[in-house]
Amino acid sequence: MCGGHGICGKCIVKIYSSEKLTPTTTEKKLLSKSDLASGYRLACLVKTLKPTRLKIEIPPESEETHQRLIVSGFMPKISIHPTIKKVYLEIKPPTLNDPKSDLNRLTSTLEKNGQFRITDINYNSLKELATVLRNDEWKTTVSIFKNREIIRIESGDTSKSCYGFSVDIGTTKLAGYLINLLNGKTVSTVSNLNPQSKFGEDIIARITFTMKDINSMSEINRCIIEGINSLIKEACNSAGISSNEILDVSVAGNTAMHHIFLGISPRYLSLAPYPPVISRGLEVKAKDLGLNTNIGSRVYLLPVVAGFVGGDAVADVIATGIHSANDLSMLIDIGTNAEIILGTKKRLVSCSCASGPAFEGSHIRHGMRASQGAIERIWIDPRSLDVSFKVIGDTKPVGICGSAVVEGIAEMLRTGIIDSRGRMDQNNTKLIRKKNDSLEFVIASRSDSGINDDIVITQSDVREIQLAKAAVYTGISILMKHMKIKPKEIKKFYLAGAFGTHIDPSSAIDLGMFPEIPLERIQFVGNTAGSGARMTLISNPTRKLVERIIKKIDYIELGANANFQKEFISSMDLPNTNKNLFPTIMKTINRNLFLLEQDKNT
Amino acid sequence: MCGGHGICGKCIVKIYSSEKLTPTTTEKKLLSKSDLASGYRLACLVKTLKPTRLKIEIPPESEETHQRLIVSGFMPKISIHPTIKKVYLEIKPPTLNDPKSDLNRLTSTLEKNGQFRITDINYNSLKELATVLRNDEWKTTVSIFKNREIIRIESGDTSKSCYGFSVDIGTTKLAGYLINLLNGKTVSTVSNLNPQSKFGEDIIARITFTMKDINSMSEINRCIIEGINSLIKEACNSAGISSNEILDVSVAGNTAMHHIFLGISPRYLSLAPYPPVISRGLEVKAKDLGLNTNIGSRVYLLPVVAGFVGGDAVADVIATGIHSANDLSMLIDIGTNAEIILGTKKRLVSCSCASGPAFEGSHIRHGMRASQGAIERIWIDPRSLDVSFKVIGDTKPVGICGSAVVEGIAEMLRTGIIDSRGRMDQNNTKLIRKKNDSLEFVIASRSDSGINDDIVITQSDVREIQLAKAAVYTGISILMKHMKIKPKEIKKFYLAGAFGTHIDPSSAIDLGMFPEIPLERIQFVGNTAGSGARMTLISNPTRKLVERIIKKIDYIELGANANFQKEFISSMDLPNTNKNLFPTIMKTINRNLFLLEQDKNT
Repeated sequence: MCGGHGICGKCIVKIYSSEKLTPTTTEKKLLSKSDLASGYRLACLVKTLKPTRLKIEIPPESEETHQRLIVSGFMPKISIHPTIKKVYLEIKPPTLNDPKSDLNRLTSTLEKNGQFRITDINYNSLKELATVLRNDEWKTTVSIFKNREIIRIESGDTSKSCYGFSVDIGTTKLAGYLINLLNGKTVSTVSNLNPQSKFGEDIIARITFTMKDINSMSEINRCIIEGINSLIKEACNSAGISSNEILDVSVAGNTAMHHIFLGISPRYLSLAPYPPVISRGLEVKAKDLGLNTNIGSRVYLLPVVAGFVGGDAVADVIATGIHSANDLSMLIDIGTNAEIILGTKKRLVSCSCASGPAFEGSHIRHGMRASQGAIERIWIDPRSLDVSFKVIGDTKPVGICGSAVVEGIAEMLRTGIIDSRGRMDQNNTKLIRKKNDSLEFVIASRSDSGINDDIVITQSDVREIQLAKAAVYTGISILMKHMKIKPKEIKKFYLAGAFGTHIDPSSAIDLGMFPEIPLERIQFVGNTAGSGARMTLISNPTRKLVERIIKKIDYIELGANANFQKEFISSMDLPNTNKNLFPTIMKTINRNLFLLEQDKNT
Repeated sequence: MCGGHGICGKCIVKIYSSEKLTPTTTEKKLLSKSDLASGYRLACLVKTLKPTRLKIEIPPESEETHQRLIVSGFMPKISIHPTIKKVYLEIKPPTLNDPKSDLNRLTSTLEKNGQFRITDINYNSLKELATVLRNDEWKTTVSIFKNREIIRIESGDTSKSCYGFSVDIGTTKLAGYLINLLNGKTVSTVSNLNPQSKFGEDIIARITFTMKDINSMSEINRCIIEGINSLIKEACNSAGISSNEILDVSVAGNTAMHHIFLGISPRYLSLAPYPPVISRGLEVKAKDLGLNTNIGSRVYLLPVVAGFVGGDAVADVIATGIHSANDLSMLIDIGTNAEIILGTKKRLVSCSCASGPAFEGSHIRHGMRASQGAIERIWIDPRSLDVSFKVIGDTKPVGICGSAVVEGIAEMLRTGIIDSRGRMDQNNTKLIRKKNDSLEFVIASRSDSGINDDIVITQSDVREIQLAKAAVYTGISILMKHMKIKPKEIKKFYLAGAFGTHIDPSSAIDLGMFPEIPLERIQFVGNTAGSGARMTLISNPTRKLVERIIKKIDYIELGANANFQKEFISSMDLPNTNKNLFPTIMKTINRNLFLLEQDKNT
């Protein structure tokens, strides 16, 4: 998960070898002495002295099981006005008295009903034009981009086959949607992990990789293009069409993904003041990018707001409609970065927080993605402090997914197992114990777990989640202060993205990650980045709308905000240094402490 | 000159070989017995039995000496408004309070003065943008296409270097002009033979070649692209600039050359009703065509009127200005095809005649191009019938150029050496003699010539010129009848193209090739196809003008005209069956016959 840097300790394997493989310092730090003695190592760090065949055992917690990727998302009903139209024509053949050019003949037939005004023809279509027109006695189907450019010409009537493809390029995952452009319906949905992960798990690691040497930029660009090409292939196979039928593509992604996809170096996104190279919406030829769609097809990229508020956030806005709402709304899309947008139809402000990959289970001792064997819910009895949990799939647990780590820590806070600084105290319960000089809380004991060990939440895990949630709340708080509003004024609170779909909102509020607002105002909208991308594919007017919306989204650079340090330090506390902001969790803690005290006394 | 088909007999070589090389039937027909015995063969037909080294002698008449290619042409003064503008900018670097995208920063600086409204940026420039802007502290020079698209971006101030290239693609020759787009001046002029000649000398031969097999279309297309690329290289070397500085290209050519240049099959141009694939003016990316100019540069192709009235004729029109003249004008551009345009600013009609390559010296026994050693003028004394001639360069003659063949035959007609049917009569003069069963007239005897033979005009040469001039006059006559006008109403008669520059107009009139009009109304305009191409490079408004002009040029398909056969047969006579049309030559013939008669009687 760390991209082979020997940081995350997630690729534990057991090696059977005659060669003595000396553990590295990192391995000594991340693995226990007994594990090392049993032959456990990190796959990314092991170097053999000579080319050899090793027997390797992959423990269950290191396996990549099929992950639950959230690809569906809320999408409003919109009318179908794609940029591409297909028209079937029967053209009068030339005669000696009417020998005008093939193209004039075609366009004058096409322009008869007044809908089209052809100013351009794609070079490839021009080369084929004469033959295609004559192949089926001047019966032909023309594909037209924005009522003005001929991008494809076919013999006979093929007007019933017109497809487009939308992609949401996430840092971690890709979601693709094959759309029938005649009715706007999604014909097949495909998803995969972003193959760029091998270059690093977060945006900064990827950007750093692009600067490694002269070839790395094109290497990482080719990687994402190939990744999307396999999604296209999969989607087309499942729908039984050729990828040549795809005449339009739309893409939403954060700014770094957007730049890398275009083959633009994202180098300056990592240097203050983090300007993107291009922010406006862009239409590029698919063949310039190397996408395996029709040679005449275009690729539309949603505009980006700033270096760290990208086209995915813009897609979230149009899918949730907060740009046109009277009610004050807040939208949070949590991935490896969290984008936050707050406002009404009059004005929107946005920011981006480096929440990091902890919410996805990275940098967490037993963290894992939300796949088979992951603990997805955790409850702690306030009186007995006994732990219950729920596992994905009918199996013993092998780790804890990100949202359950949040819930587990919220339960630890509610039941007094950790204090407002996130500290564990061994005196609280015997489930807290010291191992290798640091404290950990047992969620599933070795006998209940599917790995050869207890599954725990460590003191350092708590610290990771505190950092991540503080980053998010700092952004929320600065936006609220910028707009001069209080939490109770937020009428709609949209949670987008995979993490936002799994998280227990009351846990997030109790930890001080989200502001305290009535739970019924919170709406899970799923992958709205994908929905927004689809909307711009189905509806050309939406592309125009997006350009207008983008102009009214202000961007706040958190690092440049005078209150950033102060807000961040306050937000590190559980729930917050300013306890008045979170009355509910304070009441819960006090009640539970009272109950515990009472039980002790009886 | 026939493209290796063994037809023209122009590639005579003397072969010294131990191997007995049996002459082909064609060689037996085209070469004399004594020549064959001396080892003369046609280079294009000789096949050796085994790979071997031959000693070859190339006789002077087969040598390609440097040809006089007419590249300059009349061009009116126009104001400089190229499609490309270069602008030097000093841009404010981004800050945390103003982190907008590099492109927004660039375009907002650029759009300040209101001249530009940037809607697009070339993909390649976008990829380089961030680096180029930062290379010289945000000092940059931007090249903008039509005030709306950024096609190039450079560090520092390069606004003083802005070039374009114009090409006239003739069937036989290419002419190229490197233009400084800042002042419209031609920096260097280059020309060469069209390398496609190896696929056949005329348009029909080239079209036939494109249909030979699956690769021949791309082969002939590559050939012309490479030919133009070498012109570009030569022009840039001579001006001391890199071809990367060329930001715009304009191209004029007849319809077949236009299609082949674009990689479009010209197949249907050779089949009735001869429709072009595209007729409107076109802007294509240079990189799509494979031209070695700047990667962002466009190529503009002048529109074509019909399958055989191309962009070169349209260029002739704008350069001569006949589209805006009150006076009735006729324009003839004679190449391997002759395009004729007649009319005023109100209305123009055009046609194309298959005059063939005889005017360029092909299919003529001793015909050759107008190069070193060619007889370029011929006079016959009306009383002695002695022949005088003038040769290009300080050398003995090796052949006769096309315009001198016309003049020679006109002199033969004036002096009664041939009659109105073009027939020679051995009784007229001893300079007419029979050889291999056919008559020929000696222009330069073996002792005066630079080849080992007499230089003659044969009966069959006269026939070739009759066919060619009849084709031209048929077109002229049909256009005049279509417009219901008489020759004397033509106030301006423009002769364009290389042949049109060398020809003696009174000889052409006397042969009945041009209508009889006062000589002072005839104007030689040179290569106006090249001039028109340059005008569309220097002036974008001219491109718009051209689209309007093209709409008012009617095209007459001669083959579909009811009078074609009749007109053609009349025009075969010298000067014409209708002798009243050409009173001057009739008077000359009668006077000369009278003089001869008188001399005989004294």
